[in-house]
Amino acid sequence: MAAPFSREEIRGAAAALEGVAVRTPLVEIPALSRVAGVPVFIKAEHRQPIGAFKIRGAFTALARMAPDVRAAGVLTHSSGNHGQALAWAARHFGVRAVIVMPDDSPRVKVAGVRRHGGEVVFCKRPERARVAAGIAEREGLAQVPPYEHADVILGQATCAWEVLDDMPEVATLVVPVGGGGLLAGSAVAIRASGRPTRLVAVEPEGAAKVGPALQAGQPVPLAHPHSIADGLLPAAVGALNFALFRDVVASSVTVSDEEIARAVRLLHDAGERVEPSGAVPSAAVLAGRVPSDGPIVALVTGGNVDADVYERLTVALSS
Amino acid sequence: MAAPFSREEIRGAAAALEGVAVRTPLVEIPALSRVAGVPVFIKAEHRQPIGAFKIRGAFTALARMAPDVRAAGVLTHSSGNHGQALAWAARHFGVRAVIVMPDDSPRVKVAGVRRHGGEVVFCKRPERARVAAGIAEREGLAQVPPYEHADVILGQATCAWEVLDDMPEVATLVVPVGGGGLLAGSAVAIRASGRPTRLVAVEPEGAAKVGPALQAGQPVPLAHPHSIADGLLPAAVGALNFALFRDVVASSVTVSDEEIARAVRLLHDAGERVEPSGAVPSAAVLAGRVPSDGPIVALVTGGNVDADVYERLTVALSS
Repeated sequence: MAAPFSREEIRGAAAALEGVAVRTPLVEIPALSRVAGVPVFIKAEHRQPIGAFKIRGAFTALARMAPDVRAAGVLTHSSGNHGQALAWAARHFGVRAVIVMPDDSPRVKVAGVRRHGGEVVFCKRPERARVAAGIAEREGLAQVPPYEHADVILGQATCAWEVLDDMPEVATLVVPVGGGGLLAGSAVAIRASGRPTRLVAVEPEGAAKVGPALQAGQPVPLAHPHSIADGLLPAAVGALNFALFRDVVASSVTVSDEEIARAVRLLHDAGERVEPSGAVPSAAVLAGRVPSDGPIVALVTGGNVDADVYERLTVALSS
Repeated sequence: MAAPFSREEIRGAAAALEGVAVRTPLVEIPALSRVAGVPVFIKAEHRQPIGAFKIRGAFTALARMAPDVRAAGVLTHSSGNHGQALAWAARHFGVRAVIVMPDDSPRVKVAGVRRHGGEVVFCKRPERARVAAGIAEREGLAQVPPYEHADVILGQATCAWEVLDDMPEVATLVVPVGGGGLLAGSAVAIRASGRPTRLVAVEPEGAAKVGPALQAGQPVPLAHPHSIADGLLPAAVGALNFALFRDVVASSVTVSDEEIARAVRLLHDAGERVEPSGAVPSAAVLAGRVPSDGPIVALVTGGNVDADVYERLTVALSS
């Protein structure tokens, strides 16, 4: 697929995010550098205002929406970070945000949506799309899906764009995959940059979708995605996302829940509070599955994790 | 001194911050609750976009400034978090921010100012006020001081205001003191709320200013403030700040650098990356110096700490 966004569009999206999202730092994690034999940095997206990179896509989608559509309010269904992001972005534009959340969503993410001014509607997890569509139609709200949306992808592209801008010599960029929005955005950014950076996709073993999709030439839905990485459980990558990343991804690897937990603990020891989904790229590096002949940047996508879950992950492994 | 700001003004300042600053959560820290014998929560201001509460005062000052003055740009001198905050707020309004920084400022804070779009000018620490005044005059920039400023104090008041709004039953609010902006703001918020919450000021032993000021009836400058809490080293509390907090502070306690380091380590174990200055209230609770017959909220004011300093603090104490 032809590059859907030019350098100028990505740069424009990044500029629009100034003062709304943080230009997060690259932080070296020496314990990962020792494992990899090359310098390893995280891109600290858990330090965003909502604790996750999703602010980039949600804001960009709202910023590029027709003002009269946006004014009526927006809606999404999300178990977490995209919902918080949309609430935050909607507040920025002074419009309503309704977030349909599965009733098993992490409490910290529900609380986050509310703190950022979002209206939460609970439903059973399998019914979320139907419930969301019903409310959107009844109340005239524009749906902003979490990943299958060109402007959301453009927003997510700004993350890798900043990495390439801050550290042009990065050899390998390691990205987690849920619905594929961040992976597609990263592919778009790398392609627009013209740099030879290798893009590595990482998924939990119980929710691996990129390998099968690359093999089949199209997204292949999973019957029962499962992992402690609660943000990476969509049943399939989006078709648009797949079209954008398929020719750019250099390799796709998986990590076990135990390996993810070990990465959460390592990042905890380095002073970074990271949710399981956010630790997935670091887990692949820690497991020795990301060979690289130059600096590695592992995206840390979020830090929103319930206190009891976090304690279990970090205390259990230290004994 | 009469309450300088009404409930409506504080509420208005809090509303203006929506979408700019995060309404940070109250997070219980069980290890502190066990020490205190009552529930202890932190107000997690290190999760703000700039990693510190200072965003509240800086933004509020800019929001209330005459538009034509603001348009010419702003300036401050700061070794850290106020500088980052002013850069962030200035970017929000699309105006210049020049930050004069001592050349021994923490690197992470210098990098933060730059990431948020601020222009950094280095100088020797003792010359910072003079250098700042010179540039402000030459370039027509409005100075926004870090604490001695009514609108900055109003902004900082929103922090305690949120605490009282989210947890009206809080019995004791524990606040660190540098120049006294946050303490004055907390006093203003408690007074405006009409609640009987006790306000406890905490300072490093090497930079204790509140006790002496309360005794003398006016700020008493320190010759050589020193502490690992680099954000709490102004030589004196501001006169305006003192006037606002003197009749509201219930008690003033000090903590040693070792006690501060112990609190950094405890918060690290709880998954919160906190800078030494930000851990000072928690240190007082941990040292058993904050008796309370009901829930305690200890403000955690920031998380911007250099990686090597943080590692030394957290690793040294775990052995």
